[in-house]
Parts: sequence; structure tokens; C-alpha cells
Amino acid sequence: MEVTRTLARFVVQHRYAAVPEHIRHEAARSFLNWVGCAVGGSRHETVERALAALGPFSGPREATVLGRGDRLDIMLAALMNGITSHTFDFDDTHLRTVIHPSGPVASGLLALAEKQPITGEDFLHAFILGVEVECRIGNAVYPSHYDVGWHITGTAGVFGAAAAAGRVFRLDEQQMTWALGIAATQSSGLREMFGTMCKPFHPGNAARNGLLAALLAQKRFTSSNQGIEAPRGFANVLATGRNYDEITSKLGETWEIAINSYKPFACGIVIHPAIDGCIQLRNEHHLKPEDIESVSLHVHPLVLELTGKKTPQVGLEGKFSVYHSSAVAIIYGAAGEAQYSDQCVRDPRVIGLRDRVTATVDRTVHEDQARIAIQVKSGKTLEKFVEHAIGSKDRPISDTDLEAKFRGLTDGILSNTETGNLIGLCWDIGKLEDAGGVARASVPESKAVRTA
Amino acid sequence: MEVTRTLARFVVQHRYAAVPEHIRHEAARSFLNWVGCAVGGSRHETVERALAALGPFSGPREATVLGRGDRLDIMLAALMNGITSHTFDFDDTHLRTVIHPSGPVASGLLALAEKQPITGEDFLHAFILGVEVECRIGNAVYPSHYDVGWHITGTAGVFGAAAAAGRVFRLDEQQMTWALGIAATQSSGLREMFGTMCKPFHPGNAARNGLLAALLAQKRFTSSNQGIEAPRGFANVLATGRNYDEITSKLGETWEIAINSYKPFACGIVIHPAIDGCIQLRNEHHLKPEDIESVSLHVHPLVLELTGKKTPQVGLEGKFSVYHSSAVAIIYGAAGEAQYSDQCVRDPRVIGLRDRVTATVDRTVHEDQARIAIQVKSGKTLEKFVEHAIGSKDRPISDTDLEAKFRGLTDGILSNTETGNLIGLCWDIGKLEDAGGVARASVPESKAVRTA
Repeated sequence: MEVTRTLARFVVQHRYAAVPEHIRHEAARSFLNWVGCAVGGSRHETVERALAALGPFSGPREATVLGRGDRLDIMLAALMNGITSHTFDFDDTHLRTVIHPSGPVASGLLALAEKQPITGEDFLHAFILGVEVECRIGNAVYPSHYDVGWHITGTAGVFGAAAAAGRVFRLDEQQMTWALGIAATQSSGLREMFGTMCKPFHPGNAARNGLLAALLAQKRFTSSNQGIEAPRGFANVLATGRNYDEITSKLGETWEIAINSYKPFACGIVIHPAIDGCIQLRNEHHLKPEDIESVSLHVHPLVLELTGKKTPQVGLEGKFSVYHSSAVAIIYGAAGEAQYSDQCVRDPRVIGLRDRVTATVDRTVHEDQARIAIQVKSGKTLEKFVEHAIGSKDRPISDTDLEAKFRGLTDGILSNTETGNLIGLCWDIGKLEDAGGVARASVPESKAVRTA
Repeated sequence: MEVTRTLARFVVQHRYAAVPEHIRHEAARSFLNWVGCAVGGSRHETVERALAALGPFSGPREATVLGRGDRLDIMLAALMNGITSHTFDFDDTHLRTVIHPSGPVASGLLALAEKQPITGEDFLHAFILGVEVECRIGNAVYPSHYDVGWHITGTAGVFGAAAAAGRVFRLDEQQMTWALGIAATQSSGLREMFGTMCKPFHPGNAARNGLLAALLAQKRFTSSNQGIEAPRGFANVLATGRNYDEITSKLGETWEIAINSYKPFACGIVIHPAIDGCIQLRNEHHLKPEDIESVSLHVHPLVLELTGKKTPQVGLEGKFSVYHSSAVAIIYGAAGEAQYSDQCVRDPRVIGLRDRVTATVDRTVHEDQARIAIQVKSGKTLEKFVEHAIGSKDRPISDTDLEAKFRGLTDGILSNTETGNLIGLCWDIGKLEDAGGVARASVPESKAVRTA
């Protein structure tokens, strides 16, 4: 079976007209969410250090670091935008594989769109195809590949980045096959790096290396024609189980981006049901922290395994605390980046409520569920059972909520007008004459670099 | 056990004075051989295509592509020199792991030496330490890592490249630990790519990415502190067996470069015993192809696994054919680059003899051995058992033969005077005031770029 070539042929031959309207809309939602995350993460220390280290080695400065004035060559810009967009762990998730699909694909593609004009239609099409490639490859090797210890966003992402760039270059079938092979032989990224700056480095590096793969293949730099399926190819070397039907079946009939999801809260997905329930009770009963005696949570076992930190000291640790997350949900009605700042984690008002939160493992509660009971000082107990958390496949976040999330991310970086303009461009991405305009519109007026 | 940190501490704290003289000399031999291979490979289509694809994206053009006039930023130069030096598969081999140690380490280091002055002493020391790091990591996971399908020169090489550059940057222990972690999470390269342009891409990519790891760590870009040994670190994810003593024991007491070896033939080391035996029989009996009825080889299983191509069509495929290699050994008494040209592979005289070569797997034959039986038309059978192939640890190539090999590689690229000068600089590498001079001296007068 020719897995790599079949996939390459699909990417080369597919026509945009065959992409259903709801898929285009979901792609725009993914892209909008990604741009918001990239701009929101653009001030983080992670990207500051990467820029200080690598900026001096930039080639022609043809592409923008989103949300900043810095311009870099397209491969370094792809790296930086992949980093910023995943820094808050707030980007999109393909729940079936836990791939964060947009980072590797959009980061390279948007950089490229600043170097050579790409119509919005071509851009959105290449983006959808890139996401399709990485998620299908992920489907084929999940879960064994992830269980071994691979960070699948990096390892599968490099294929998506290569496919998307290759599509823009109009590679032929052989070149696209090579591009996927050159991607395969660069596939990397270890889960051991979670909790360090290397985690967001992975989608960035996938974007950088995928672009490099497409550039090399364009000049007929050869690789294996069976990079994915050969006995010593990607799927055999990096996974203990595999199903190639996931890659080659129903190409062009089903679309992986259709099941993409977007976190409403800036933390691991396992705490989302608890946060969701706390916010609902808060809003329904106009709760204030001083009214509350105690908060009792019944949660899936993974919640305490992954996010059981009782006394987080810094913002990042707050993301691994269901106690902190529930407290801020009640106090602020939100769990965005602002609620995971060092300052917020150390706020006595937050700590006071956090210490009144208890969490109990309940094996009857599914991953997507939570049972919340808030005892108020009047003596009453307010209860809420969350069946599906907001942002999950069964309760997708609305376009309006996505925009609100976007505004939360760009707040303090872009003006309201700039944010509104950028949101508009993202929704219209498929219709723009020049997709690269999105990158330029992500830079606040005060930081804009005047270029010739 | 702190594997990564122990290794990092060793690299940071070691002193050049503690490197024995014979180790320095072996390092100079390795370096000389590497420079010869890089210059020799500098006209190959592989590097032409890579340059065409990536050259336009170069940052500050501070480093030289050996043997050429092109100048590139240090990361791209590291990539290109890693590619050229492995293009002919003629570079050094650490036989215990089949790592080609110099490519990933020297490629980045020499590029760096053109950016910032590095004394010959510091250069040679960093080179020795980089080789030590990659080979020890290789020892720890060999053979399971290689058996799974990883091209160990790429996967282990990135650590060596990071360590060498990190040493030049004078990273502290924490930074060096991060550098090794950032290397771990980029570790990649599949054996599936053998026979394509991606094979030499692997050491080049290891050089490029190792340099990137050191640059990031210098700016305190964090990674795991247990990149090698964590449950989801390099050694557990990329190998089914591992022995950390190979990394942490006797650091500074034993030196892996001491067992480095240099191929006399321009192909994979596994076929060398067969070639050696064929050349010996040819010379002893003044054999001509038309005298020969058949050639029968008994070889180690890896020989057919790696080089079992019966009917190679192009030069590169010839290197993966024990049949072609044995035929040219008998016809030409040599197996240099000339014997692996497209022309030679398609030569009817070569094909005629090649088709009379048979190879049989013999599990009693070690990797370094081969049993050859040539039946001549007169009816006699000439036999040879090769105990240790020329160029192996037990039958090392002499300094004089290394120089001859170097001259064969640079022939047609450099003048005799230029070659002599370059050989002299390589032997003196540890004593040079400015190691970067070697890169500049590798460029023929006619191609030299005048820089400010």
C-alpha cells in the first residue's frame, strides 16, 4: 500500500471547490483562535529568549512575529509564531489525538504568505489540507505513539506544515511525496519537555522544519517515497501500533478540522468541567466569594492526577490546580491568562476561597463531566452537574465566545479597534486578496516597523 | 541517577590539559578526514539542491561552505558542511555504534569558529568533547536504538553538536543541561532514508539543530533537566534498551575518539570486509573480470540487510550494493567515489561481473569479517577470509594513507598546493591561533569570496 504517495497525491490534486462551507467556517474559527493565541503569547519570556538567541541569525526579514514589531526570515518567523501560539496552551485541540493542529500549519503558512502573495482561498485551502495531513497521520498512530512519549503536536505537526507549504508551492506528486519524507525524518518532540519552554518550541519547530522540507522538495532534494509506511519509516519507528486506513480512507470525504475544538479556559482540558460549573453557578446566583462557606467538587480521577496542586505558588502552577481554577472561576467568572498570573495566584482573596475548595475523585464522573456543590453562608447548597464542558465537541464554543476569548488574549497588546479589525480579517480569511495582511494587522500601531 | 546533568558537568568542567597526546592526534586525524570528505563532496548535486533551496534564506553570511565560495549563516553552513561531508559516506565511523562522529560536531564548530575567533586548542577540545558526548549516548542505546530504525548519526549527533557549541559558548552546568535537553527533543533521522539525499541531510541537520540548542540554552531557554534519562526522555522513547553507565562511567578516563575509524572505501562500512578481500585476491592473483566464473561472498547478516541492492541504477544505489562494490573492487582494485558514479554503475563490464556475484548470510561471520571465494574459469577457486577489514580498529589506516585519501577527495577541486596547505592546517588544528582559518583555506583561489 502506498500510504505516503496516496496522501501526497490527495494534497496535490484536491480542489478548494470541494471543501464544504461548514468546513471552511471551522477552519476560519481555528485560524481566528490561533491568531488570538499567538498575539496573546507574544510578550512571553519564552519568545523573548528565543528571539534573543536566534534573531541575530535571521535571513531576509520578510515575515512578522505576530503581535510584535519584530520581523524575521520565514523559517524563524514560523518558529516564533509556533512558540507564541502554544505558550499559553490555549490553542486548538484535535481531541481524538490531542494534537494542537493549527500551530505547526498556520505558523509556516502565514510567514510564507508575507513572502509571496497568497490569496485567502489558497491560504485557507492549504491550511485545511495541512491540518488534514497531520491529524490523519496522528489518527494512524494514536494512542501508542503518544503513550511511548512523543509530543504528537510536534511529531505529526511537521507533516502538516510540509504539506501546507508544499501545496502553496504547487509541488507535484513526487515532490510532495519527498516533502512528506523529509518531514518524517525530522519528526521529533518529547513529552518529557512538558512544563518547560520546549513544549511550545515543538509546534514552532514543526512549522520551521516542515517549511524546510517543502523548500528542499521543491528543489528536488530526494527522500524515501515511503517515509510514513516503510518498515523503517515514521509509523513503524515512532509507534508500536498503526492503522494506515486512517490516512488513506475517505480522503476528501471527511475532514478532521470538523472535530477541532477550542479551549475557553487557559489551562488543561481536564479541569474545564469544574470551571464551567463554577462559572454557571456564579452567574445564576450572583455569587460573591464572601458569601461562600465551601465548594465541593466531584471529578474524574485524572483531574487530581494532573491538576491536584493545593497551594500553587506561581501562575504556571495555578494551571495545574483545580482548587485555584475553581476559585477564580467563582470570583472572576473567567479562567483566562489573567487568572493564571503570578499576581492572581498570590492574591489573598483568591487564596481564601481556594482553601475552601475540596475535590473528591468519583469514578462515575466522566472526563467531560463534573459535579459541583457550593454551600453558601445562608445555609443553602447550590448544585450543578456539568454533562459536557463548554468547548467540548458536544458543546462547542460559539463564534461570539471565540471572539470574547480573542479579545481577552489581545487585551493590553492591541487597541480595541486593532483587535476588531484583526478579528474581521480572520473571519474573512478565505476571501482576502492577500492572506499575509493578517500578519501585518496583528502588530499594534506603536510597534509597527515601516518596511519598503 | 542524574545522567544528563552528569554529562553536562563533565563537558563544562573538563580541561584540555587532561586530554592525552594520542587522543589529540586521533582527533586531528578525524578532523583531517572530515575536511577532506567535506571538500570532496562540495560539488555534489545533493548540496547544490540544498543550497538552491535554502541559501536565499541565509542570515549573516559569516561561515564558509567548505570547498566552495558560498558563504552562509552559521546554522545553514553547519547544515551544508554536514551534508557534503557525509555525501560520499566516506567520513569517519565509530564502529561500536556506527555513528559517523565528526560530521555533526565539526560542521557546527567550524562554522562557529568563523563567527567568533576560537583558538585551535579550544576548537580541538570542544571537538573531542562533542564526539565523546554523542558516542557515549550512542553506546548507551546501541544496538536497540539502531535496530528500531533510527539513523544514529543524526539522533546522537545532535547531542554532540550541542555539547561542542555549548563548550565554546562557555555555558554553565545548568545551561549545558538544557542544551542537551533541547538536543534530545530534536533528535531525529530515520534509516528508511538510506539511499536518498536525506541520509547526508541527517548529520547536517544534527549540526544545525545542535547549534540551535546551544544558542537557545545560552539565552536560558529551558528544557527538562533529564532529557536523556527521564521516563519520557530520549533513551526511553527512542530505544528499547539502555545502559546509562556507558554515559556516566569513566568520564575523562576513556575517550571514544580513540576508537574512531576512517573508511578506505566510499561506501557503508558493512561492505568493507568484502571489498578488502576482493582487492586482496585481485592483487595477489592479478585477476581480470573476464577470468572470473563467479564470486561467492559469505557475510554478516547486516550486509544484505543494508546493502543488498542487486541491480543498482545510479551511483548512490551502488553504495548500497555489495554486488556492485565487489565487482568494482575486482575490476579497479578500488572503491572510491569514481567507482560509485552513475557511469560506473551502468558500465556493462561492471554489470557483467556484478551479476556473477552471490552473497550468503553467515551468522558465524562477524561484522568486521567476510569470506570470499572466487571461482576462476580455469576451474580453481581462490579463497580469502578477512579477519579485520582495512580501516577498522584492528587494522587502522595510516596517517600517510589518510593523506592519500584526502588528496583523492580534493583532486579536481583544489590545486596540489592548496591541498598541501589544507592538510598542514588540519594536522596543526590544535595549535592554530584561529581555527576558522581551516574553513577559508578549503576554498580554491578561483572561488574565494572577498569579504571585508
